[in-house]
Amino acid sequence: MADYASRRLELGRVLREAGIDSFIATTPITMGYYSGFFEGGGERLMALVLDQSGGMRLFCPALSVNQAIRCGIEDVRGFVDGEDPTEAIRSSGLRGRVAVDDEMLASILLRFQGWLPDVSFIAGSRLAGQVMRCKNQSELDELFRAGKMADVAFEAVRGTIRAGERESDVGGRLEATMKAEGGRPMFAIVATGANGAEPHHHSDETVLADGDVMIMDFGCEAGGYMSDITRTVSIGEPRDPEADRVYQIVLDAHHAARSVIRPGVTAGEIDGAARKVIEEAGFGEFFVHRTGHGLGMRVHEEPYIMPGSDEVIMEGDCFSIEPGIYLPGRFGVRIENIVTCTADGHASFNVEPPISLIRV
Amino acid sequence: MADYASRRLELGRVLREAGIDSFIATTPITMGYYSGFFEGGGERLMALVLDQSGGMRLFCPALSVNQAIRCGIEDVRGFVDGEDPTEAIRSSGLRGRVAVDDEMLASILLRFQGWLPDVSFIAGSRLAGQVMRCKNQSELDELFRAGKMADVAFEAVRGTIRAGERESDVGGRLEATMKAEGGRPMFAIVATGANGAEPHHHSDETVLADGDVMIMDFGCEAGGYMSDITRTVSIGEPRDPEADRVYQIVLDAHHAARSVIRPGVTAGEIDGAARKVIEEAGFGEFFVHRTGHGLGMRVHEEPYIMPGSDEVIMEGDCFSIEPGIYLPGRFGVRIENIVTCTADGHASFNVEPPISLIRV
Repeated sequence: MADYASRRLELGRVLREAGIDSFIATTPITMGYYSGFFEGGGERLMALVLDQSGGMRLFCPALSVNQAIRCGIEDVRGFVDGEDPTEAIRSSGLRGRVAVDDEMLASILLRFQGWLPDVSFIAGSRLAGQVMRCKNQSELDELFRAGKMADVAFEAVRGTIRAGERESDVGGRLEATMKAEGGRPMFAIVATGANGAEPHHHSDETVLADGDVMIMDFGCEAGGYMSDITRTVSIGEPRDPEADRVYQIVLDAHHAARSVIRPGVTAGEIDGAARKVIEEAGFGEFFVHRTGHGLGMRVHEEPYIMPGSDEVIMEGDCFSIEPGIYLPGRFGVRIENIVTCTADGHASFNVEPPISLIRV
Repeated sequence: MADYASRRLELGRVLREAGIDSFIATTPITMGYYSGFFEGGGERLMALVLDQSGGMRLFCPALSVNQAIRCGIEDVRGFVDGEDPTEAIRSSGLRGRVAVDDEMLASILLRFQGWLPDVSFIAGSRLAGQVMRCKNQSELDELFRAGKMADVAFEAVRGTIRAGERESDVGGRLEATMKAEGGRPMFAIVATGANGAEPHHHSDETVLADGDVMIMDFGCEAGGYMSDITRTVSIGEPRDPEADRVYQIVLDAHHAARSVIRPGVTAGEIDGAARKVIEEAGFGEFFVHRTGHGLGMRVHEEPYIMPGSDEVIMEGDCFSIEPGIYLPGRFGVRIENIVTCTADGHASFNVEPPISLIRV
């Protein structure tokens, strides 16, 4: 079992250093990370208040009180549906500067702002992320395990892809393989031909055509931790004469970014290393997103590998490296592995991407 | 295709009547309901601004601009990763009272509050819900179709349940059946024995024992619309001598609530009708949640069937009726159908629940 008390003490230290009085967690993952209580209130008020000294107090629907107590939360205040929590919150001692989960619902934040007009609320996931982002060995093991499931899915499916089937057919097989491996499929974006030029295309009924370049971006959850991988393949010989070259540029950018990872480098420097390769090849305007995002119990979390970011990378940080080039109306290429920053470089949770654009 | 322009005009009317200048949608469902653009920005800024005259303007990541334009959104401002949107938002004309999606992320709301210090932000899902909650015939057809998938799953699985298997086994079969019917399973809570006394228990590895009373609460999405049903059964003859009686009380409460549904009744009156039955039977303290929630493209939406609510129910409203009794350490009973308010009463999207505690 995770050492929740140590995590709360560590968060308390981060809060003290940042001059923040309390942190209010409302998402299942943040609450669970610090308490073992992985629950969500939906539109009902459910909030775990964490303080500078490692203490915690839960406000939650009455119907969740027993579960919370069994998770070891001693200070629990339950509300039945329709009960007004105003007085309980006002007398809770919350004051000063209070950080909240970035993903707290606006409706809940607006209620807190109404209850506590003198409190200054700030987005706090970056703070809470200071504790969550650096993974210990058991967390790294889980991420590695989830990463393997994505690797297995790609290996299992790549030989089965045929012109004439639909994007959603391929996505379904990727998901089924990850499920058979014991994972919970989280997403499987398959984008063929011109669809691949849109980084956030959803798999749809588009039929794979001979010569298409196709992006597959998929991942699963296992043991509470996530995987996320992207591979780009060609359906037979690529129709577009630039496909092989673009693949090589993206692959070079991918490895360029990875080559600079070590403790102390900034996220901006990692992003810059990938971006430089793509810009120098003349495709800078077609790399329309950041190079990567942190990943752990969430698919997206700190640190974000963004242009200009001065976020300092630390040992144990886990994040994606996923440069891409998107040529409107033609095709897209993206190559993504999840890596972790080690004492003297980095390690990948995924096997290495193919060294050239493979034909399937 | 849905008539998005009419929906926006209708929202504009609601905004004018409420004295709200604009509505900012940030969730895929709300944005999609009003524009056909069903996307989410995650931690990136993606916001559809809807105004009193039915107009719309989208702020979104650069990588989503093409998709938005294809959905017919003409006024789109894209931001590349790392770009500062401050000036674009400040010069956007947003002012006065602005309603936001209840589910907007706190981090996004805090950014808007920082960008626009003179604007008063309010939680707006109840406003937007005034348009969304009343379903037209094609939406009712979709809800009926999703409801049938849940009905089929219960009928298919009820005869297969055996002592000795795990809650998650039963949940898996419910989900597989809904998937085979063409639905996308959204949840399948199976709670046997004492687990059933916790309304939000998740299916786990608990083994079904002879004599357990077991709750199954599950649903799926089909065509963008949701189903949600709860059935309670006994594994063989119930161990607890009160099980049959408690089932009858909950069933009576279920039908009592449904019997008062008609246009003009308040949500509080519907809740009260169920609650009265359970209180008069002496189990009031064990009915720890509201009687129901609206449902449509979301599993939970307006109107909420809460104690004391003066929300007036209208023709086309769709919501759950799901009273329950939870006896700590013993068992729980919950019986849920989704219904819609008709011109002179109500109709159910699910077949009627069994008239007594069935033995499986």
